[in-house]
Amino acid sequence: MQMKDIIEKKRDGGILCREEIEFFIEGYTGGEIPDYQASALLMAIFFQGLNRQETFYLTDAMKRSGDVADLSDIPGIKVDKHSTGGVGDKTTLIVAPICASEGVPVAKMSGRGLGFTGGTVDKMESIPGFRTSLEKEEFRKAVEEAGMCVIGQSAHIAAADKKLYALRDVTATVDNIGLITSSIMSKKLASGSDAIVLDVKCGSGAFMKKLEDAETLAEWMVDIGKQSGKKMAAFITDMEQPLGCGVGNTIEVQEAIDTLKGRGPEDITELSVKLAGYMIYIGEGADSYEHGIEKARDAMESGRALKQFRKFVKAQGGNPDITEDYGLFPQAEYSVPVLCENSGYVTALCAETVGKASQLSGAGREKKEDSVDLAAGIILKKKVGDSAEKGDFLAEVFSNSREKAEEAAELLGQAFSIGTEKPEKRTVVYKIVE
Amino acid sequence: MQMKDIIEKKRDGGILCREEIEFFIEGYTGGEIPDYQASALLMAIFFQGLNRQETFYLTDAMKRSGDVADLSDIPGIKVDKHSTGGVGDKTTLIVAPICASEGVPVAKMSGRGLGFTGGTVDKMESIPGFRTSLEKEEFRKAVEEAGMCVIGQSAHIAAADKKLYALRDVTATVDNIGLITSSIMSKKLASGSDAIVLDVKCGSGAFMKKLEDAETLAEWMVDIGKQSGKKMAAFITDMEQPLGCGVGNTIEVQEAIDTLKGRGPEDITELSVKLAGYMIYIGEGADSYEHGIEKARDAMESGRALKQFRKFVKAQGGNPDITEDYGLFPQAEYSVPVLCENSGYVTALCAETVGKASQLSGAGREKKEDSVDLAAGIILKKKVGDSAEKGDFLAEVFSNSREKAEEAAELLGQAFSIGTEKPEKRTVVYKIVE
Repeated sequence: MQMKDIIEKKRDGGILCREEIEFFIEGYTGGEIPDYQASALLMAIFFQGLNRQETFYLTDAMKRSGDVADLSDIPGIKVDKHSTGGVGDKTTLIVAPICASEGVPVAKMSGRGLGFTGGTVDKMESIPGFRTSLEKEEFRKAVEEAGMCVIGQSAHIAAADKKLYALRDVTATVDNIGLITSSIMSKKLASGSDAIVLDVKCGSGAFMKKLEDAETLAEWMVDIGKQSGKKMAAFITDMEQPLGCGVGNTIEVQEAIDTLKGRGPEDITELSVKLAGYMIYIGEGADSYEHGIEKARDAMESGRALKQFRKFVKAQGGNPDITEDYGLFPQAEYSVPVLCENSGYVTALCAETVGKASQLSGAGREKKEDSVDLAAGIILKKKVGDSAEKGDFLAEVFSNSREKAEEAAELLGQAFSIGTEKPEKRTVVYKIVE
Repeated sequence: MQMKDIIEKKRDGGILCREEIEFFIEGYTGGEIPDYQASALLMAIFFQGLNRQETFYLTDAMKRSGDVADLSDIPGIKVDKHSTGGVGDKTTLIVAPICASEGVPVAKMSGRGLGFTGGTVDKMESIPGFRTSLEKEEFRKAVEEAGMCVIGQSAHIAAADKKLYALRDVTATVDNIGLITSSIMSKKLASGSDAIVLDVKCGSGAFMKKLEDAETLAEWMVDIGKQSGKKMAAFITDMEQPLGCGVGNTIEVQEAIDTLKGRGPEDITELSVKLAGYMIYIGEGADSYEHGIEKARDAMESGRALKQFRKFVKAQGGNPDITEDYGLFPQAEYSVPVLCENSGYVTALCAETVGKASQLSGAGREKKEDSVDLAAGIILKKKVGDSAEKGDFLAEVFSNSREKAEEAAELLGQAFSIGTEKPEKRTVVYKIVE
């Protein structure tokens, strides 16, 4: 088999077989197939596409290109949740303890933040003592003790994806449904859960800007997951504006705790209860999605979910008292308000701009090797549909650098559109693909 | 300017501007733009194409990526002839002395053979003492003395093309009219002549299999040459069967000398007189193409062209007596005949198979670094339209290796198709694009 022939076949609209796709992924991961042949194939795929069968073969080969976690010695149906990336999305920290408290184990590998989207691992590290790097035995024990565990994603998960994604990024070949699906799903399938609930973000702050594109991606990912023997579903949710009011690391963990206490923002509460409800249902802790939602709501209202969160923090070496004393979190030295300049209603709040402002405040990274200011970030005081008088706080920026806080506040001001007519409330969950 | 943006623009069907094309060629030649970005752009070009304006900019940038010959101190209109590559094509060695004898100087840089097509430089080296590597001053002096000169192409001509062609070859991006045009024309434009007559081969033994594809390539190359200020024309000629009867190095030089003596095969004689006629016309040595043909024929019949050939051989250090004594050429130790198995007419003679058999006999190379057996090759005794009785010689293979001669003869037998009906004679020149 020759790579040149595979490129030519795809270039001419052919359907690649399993052996050809495996030859490519194994050869590319092993370094025998050079970048320049891989990028030519990627561009041919951009034009000719991959069908679902080819995408399944690609995903499967990419999954097997690195470590594949084996969670079979943890009893129960392990459920994973994965978001395609948004701003202010701290749902993992809310839904995982809800599920765990209802007997559905969540063993999760998460990433760090990059660009304007945050990562769960960074957020968890704002809890004093919390460890996101555990040995295999520690991981198993943590799930046993707390019913859940969140660790950093191994560098050896889906090795081919890491290499391919870096190449796609510099060769204008990111935007293809088959390639996007295989990139996300290869990592998810390698992390070993039995069921996966995807949260496909849609809107200006997400990779998918249009609902129909988000739907297509959701359908493909659900299909590939099912072909791989997993229980699957995908939520399509709003990312026109940030989720909740807090954006940053410490700030988001605090909002997650607030939500577990039943006093979180409306949108994040709704989404968390729905996602957790579905996860309980798919994890066979409830007979139906509606029944799962009831259980999720009850876990929150009864305080069971918060108790589970404290167990989880403790099991990974963190100080569980942070749920009662926010003074134990890293503190920001400076805060700068964003003031309303003209009275009216917030008609739009650009999630991407908010994400970039948060990154600017020190909460995010530009490059992988950058460190983050755990206390930095944003608290939104107004969201779409809220009225604001001239001089009201629209938001507040926190940072350990005054300069960064001021820069971020200036950018953040541009995220708000103020108008005279009250806009409709935004929908939180558009659709569930199953 | 960023290479990624250029790739994306072409991917989305945009027209690249001169600055973008120059940025790519300069960066790629200089090593700042990596192969993997170049191959992604090449594949995007494969799908979206290049228009003639982009092709002109690309050709021009590629031309300037290496040495550009300056022949301005050689008086007269310097005419170059370039063939897109065929089997048995020794026309350069015939047309150049004809033109030179009529006062039209030919200063030519030629390549070596690769794969199943031969190269003029290898052929010339079968003449004892002949030097194809001359210093600039020697080159000028040779043209002055003999009215013509043939040297090996500098390694620094169109440096970008060398790199790009190697990349296209392994990424399935060879087959695009804009890329093919720029590859050929960048080298031709860099070699400094004032007028260029192209010989675009068409048929099973050529890169262009179909007449309409050959016509398109001819039109594009003529257009790009004219945009670059050159006098241009392109012949479209037959390559269904080899040109003439000899294939190899020594064998082809001998056939060229025979043709200059007026006793060459019909097809090579016709093509040489027509090409030389056009070159004399475009070089302003005749008032019309027809007048050029008359002059070319006269140069051959009078013996002037042969005399010019001897001058040329002498000017480059070779022994001119080879024109009278073929015993001075390298000799092959073995010869193996290909016999006719069934009486009938030769209905087809596959040029590509003949070329491969010649390569197998030792006359050609598989890889650039291989050496060639100068005496090896093939003499065809029958061509399309000839009748042959069972037991007649169809061809004879020469080599300094008995094994190679036998292998080549076996393959060569497959090149002949014998039928019962006499086929039409093949056309030599299909069309002239000017």
